[in-house]
Amino acid sequence: MKVIVIGATGNIGHVVATTLQARGHDVISASRSGYPAVDISDPDSIAAFFEQVGKNADAVVVTAGAVPFKPFTELTRDDYLTALTSKTLSQVDVASQALKYLNDGGSITLTSGVIARAPIATAAAAALANGAIESFVITAAAESPRGIRINAVSPDVLENSPQFHATFAGHRPVSDEEIGRAYTLAVEGVGTGQTITV
Amino acid sequence: MKVIVIGATGNIGHVVATTLQARGHDVISASRSGYPAVDISDPDSIAAFFEQVGKNADAVVVTAGAVPFKPFTELTRDDYLTALTSKTLSQVDVASQALKYLNDGGSITLTSGVIARAPIATAAAAALANGAIESFVITAAAESPRGIRINAVSPDVLENSPQFHATFAGHRPVSDEEIGRAYTLAVEGVGTGQTITV
Repeated sequence: MKVIVIGATGNIGHVVATTLQARGHDVISASRSGYPAVDISDPDSIAAFFEQVGKNADAVVVTAGAVPFKPFTELTRDDYLTALTSKTLSQVDVASQALKYLNDGGSITLTSGVIARAPIATAAAAALANGAIESFVITAAAESPRGIRINAVSPDVLENSPQFHATFAGHRPVSDEEIGRAYTLAVEGVGTGQTITV
Repeated sequence: MKVIVIGATGNIGHVVATTLQARGHDVISASRSGYPAVDISDPDSIAAFFEQVGKNADAVVVTAGAVPFKPFTELTRDDYLTALTSKTLSQVDVASQALKYLNDGGSITLTSGVIARAPIATAAAAALANGAIESFVITAAAESPRGIRINAVSPDVLENSPQFHATFAGHRPVSDEEIGRAYTLAVEGVGTGQTITV
C-alpha cells in the first residue's frame, strides 16, 4: 500500500513509518520541517501537500499535533483554542482533504490519547482535544464515501518518553512495538469508526 | 442553592430552569437575549455576567451552544471551527471563569449529547464538539479546586424536538422529565468528572 505518515519526525510517527516500511508498504514520511513538508495547521499547506503526493494513496496516518499542559486553574481560553486547532481541527482537516485523494477502500488514521478517557494532571486541554477526535471518527466513518475507513489510535504514555512517566504515574508505558501494532491494525485491518487503545 | 442556568431560553435550558425552580432552588435564568444577558462566545461577556450575578453561586449549568449539521463530505474547516468555538470552547470558558465565583463544594454542569458516542448522519462536527466536552470533564474535575464538581449531561434527541426524530431514527426520544432528572442529579448529587447520559 501507499501510506502517507504525517508527523513522521515525532516519537509516534517515526515508529509508525518504520513499522509500516518494514511491513513492505510504500511509506511517504511527511512533517512540518522535512520533505515533503506539510503544516497541518494551514489548510493551504495540506491542500498543496496532497496535490503533490496524495494521488492513489491507500492510507493517511496523522501523528502530529501538540497541546499545552497546565493545571486546570491556569489554562486560558487561548490554551484551549490552541489545543483544539493544533491537535483537533488540524487532524480533521487532513481527514476531510484526504477523502478526495485516497483510493476506494483506503483509510485515515488519526491520533488521540489516553487523556481522552483518564484524568491526568495538567491535561484538561489535551483531554478536550483528544475526546473530540475519538467522537469524530465514529460519525465520520459512518458517513465516509467509497469505503474509506476512519479510525483513531489512542496511546497511553510512551516507553520512549520517560520525561512524561511521572505525570502518568500508575499507567503502563507503551512500547514502540505496541504502537507499531496499533497503527498497523488501523491501516491493514477492516475496522472503521474505532478508537484503538494501546 | 443559588443556581445559574445559561441557555435558559433553549429547549433543555428551559426544562432545567423550571425543574430546579420547582425543587426550591434560587434559579437565575440567563441567555444571550434575556436578562441577565450573557454571550458565552465572548469571554468579556462571561466575565461581566459572573461579576454581576456569580457571587455565592452554588451551581452553574450551561445548556447553550449550537453546531452546524451537514454531511461529512460537505463540512468545511470553518464548520468544525464554529462547532468547537460555539459549543466547546464557550462552555469550557464558562467553567473556567465560574471557578472564581462558585462557593466551596459548588458544581459546574456542561451539556454534550449522544452524538459523542453514536453515529448520526450530518453530525461529524457535533460529535467533535460533544466528545471534547465529555473528555474535558474527566480531567477538569480531577483538578478542580475547593471541592467544585464538574460534570456533563449528554442527552439523546428530545421528545419535544420532533424535527430531529428522523435523523435520530431508532433512538428513544428523551422526555422533559428525564432531562430535568439528569441535570438535578448533576446539581444535587455528589458525582464529579461524570458524563450523565439520558
